[in-house]
Amino acid sequence: VISLQIQGEERRAVEFDPDKPELLLLNQLLLPDKISFIRIRDYAEAADAITRMVVRGAPAIGATGAYALALAAHDSSAQTKEDFSRELSKVKDLLVAARPTANDLRHWVDLVFLAAIQEATVSEGRAKAIQEAVRIAEESAAECRLMGEVAHHLIEEGMGVLTHCNAGALATVDYGTALAPIRRAAEDRSFTVYIGRTGPYFQGARLTTWELAQENISHILVDDNAVFHHMATGEIALVITGCDRVAVNGDAANKIGTLGRAIAAKYYDIPFYIALPRTTFDENSPSGESIPLEERDPNEILYAWNGPRLAPEDTPVRNVSFDITPKELITGYITHQGILSAGELPTAFS
Amino acid sequence: VISLQIQGEERRAVEFDPDKPELLLLNQLLLPDKISFIRIRDYAEAADAITRMVVRGAPAIGATGAYALALAAHDSSAQTKEDFSRELSKVKDLLVAARPTANDLRHWVDLVFLAAIQEATVSEGRAKAIQEAVRIAEESAAECRLMGEVAHHLIEEGMGVLTHCNAGALATVDYGTALAPIRRAAEDRSFTVYIGRTGPYFQGARLTTWELAQENISHILVDDNAVFHHMATGEIALVITGCDRVAVNGDAANKIGTLGRAIAAKYYDIPFYIALPRTTFDENSPSGESIPLEERDPNEILYAWNGPRLAPEDTPVRNVSFDITPKELITGYITHQGILSAGELPTAFS
Repeated sequence: VISLQIQGEERRAVEFDPDKPELLLLNQLLLPDKISFIRIRDYAEAADAITRMVVRGAPAIGATGAYALALAAHDSSAQTKEDFSRELSKVKDLLVAARPTANDLRHWVDLVFLAAIQEATVSEGRAKAIQEAVRIAEESAAECRLMGEVAHHLIEEGMGVLTHCNAGALATVDYGTALAPIRRAAEDRSFTVYIGRTGPYFQGARLTTWELAQENISHILVDDNAVFHHMATGEIALVITGCDRVAVNGDAANKIGTLGRAIAAKYYDIPFYIALPRTTFDENSPSGESIPLEERDPNEILYAWNGPRLAPEDTPVRNVSFDITPKELITGYITHQGILSAGELPTAFS
Repeated sequence: VISLQIQGEERRAVEFDPDKPELLLLNQLLLPDKISFIRIRDYAEAADAITRMVVRGAPAIGATGAYALALAAHDSSAQTKEDFSRELSKVKDLLVAARPTANDLRHWVDLVFLAAIQEATVSEGRAKAIQEAVRIAEESAAECRLMGEVAHHLIEEGMGVLTHCNAGALATVDYGTALAPIRRAAEDRSFTVYIGRTGPYFQGARLTTWELAQENISHILVDDNAVFHHMATGEIALVITGCDRVAVNGDAANKIGTLGRAIAAKYYDIPFYIALPRTTFDENSPSGESIPLEERDPNEILYAWNGPRLAPEDTPVRNVSFDITPKELITGYITHQGILSAGELPTAFS
């Protein structure tokens, strides 16, 4: 069973048919008002879709990158293994650059690349790239289900649970990371999900509300500035977010605003959990300091989504799109192997 | 000299000509793109302008309320002191209800009311209401200048200073509260003001950027979710905000999001100051718990300013527009009498 019910059908935000092969992306820029899938023809279109946020969410863009590299391998006209490897290496770099903060993208694309070039022949490499992309995606979907199983007990009847941005089925291959325990708990408990609008690009308002409404999970949309007030009142008693990259020491990069929520959760003694599949863990980043933070187009700040310009035209803007939450602020890490401490991460994911 | 330079003229956001009498409001819903003053004919139009946020900011709506009550006194056809008092009392209640969290509005309207009804005759009461409204407004403007004098030393050359929402000349009779030390420091120092967009209604993006640009004060607009990141990097080294009501113990109500910034400032050991004129201090509220917090129209959350709807139409929304920052998180209170501690407030303002 797939989580997203779209116009009565089970669909995924990132769909890949290995037999054709064909890659389709649900255009998340048009949600919640319009359901429209875009056919991705090559890696350049995939990179563009990631940059424009047609697809977003760490595992979902990881899958997009892996499938796009598989398409590139399939379409390759290379005759020698050397040419094949050189060609895929370039594609890999271009895909990874589309979202520098996300580890899944880098990791998944690496795995597909290595699988493809380790085969004896170019022809076998082409087939292997597709197999490997499908394998990682299905593994990731299974991990998300497990994350729901291991962590749903954190959510009690009647509780207010804050999440951030969108870390649901729309952000993953299926089921979600932060929304995994929420989906699972909703099978037998009533509780309320609080979600901030998630400025500047409003993924919380546009995507998470839509996804939770599909599942009939009770939710309340608030402004990002209001989450602290609803912590102070006790309405929010638990925080669960996804993440884009976790360093070896446990520092976590995630959508901008995660840090502020984590600081406030600490201040109010509210447990703060981060949910991550194995591909989000970056064994090459010792701490948050080595995680690159993407700065995006100033127009995302100057304009209110597709609405009017807010500030004077020449207003100086910074648009840092991710922040680092230090491990001290994270109560635990929800993984397919259980809820871990920062110290347990390296062994669990090695 | 008046702070706001509008189309080459010195203007105020709230203008009152006691001789006609006439009340004009700069329509802040049209900034930064259009300069347009609205003539307010009576107290009902004034209350509506406050509710719709044509005028906003604690002292600016205080002045609007005071002038509107003075207009009501002037226009009153009451023949007896009893009728006059009864009539003004009703007007007073209606005006105060337009923005329940703000203390200035309640306080200023009370002062004008008491001055008017204490006169020997209705005719003298009419004249006195106008005199008293003008007196408080000019006193408040002078206080703002003094707040700049007493606190500008907090701002050092090269510093990053975070403010929130708009607490400048647009929010006051003149000069500003939080922007008072910023304006004064800018006379002889270079530094950068950080301002979050201030969701849901984007007063930071729409108003503060415009006001700072008028004064050539360096500023950077960021998303509300990003202020924590810029504290973590050390770019922000000081926070100064205005406020809507300060309780006797020092707890402060201000625009939603102030609380989260104060918690983060504490976490990073960044000094956090609140600037207040005397009329913002509420001797009837022992602590923040007794301050009413206005909840506004859900459409402010569902829509991005005048842009498209963000979330599905029937999404459940909370739109709490103010929060309470507990005194423990406030380093000091910038007043016309100096920078005070919470304990010094009651004596200073009694």
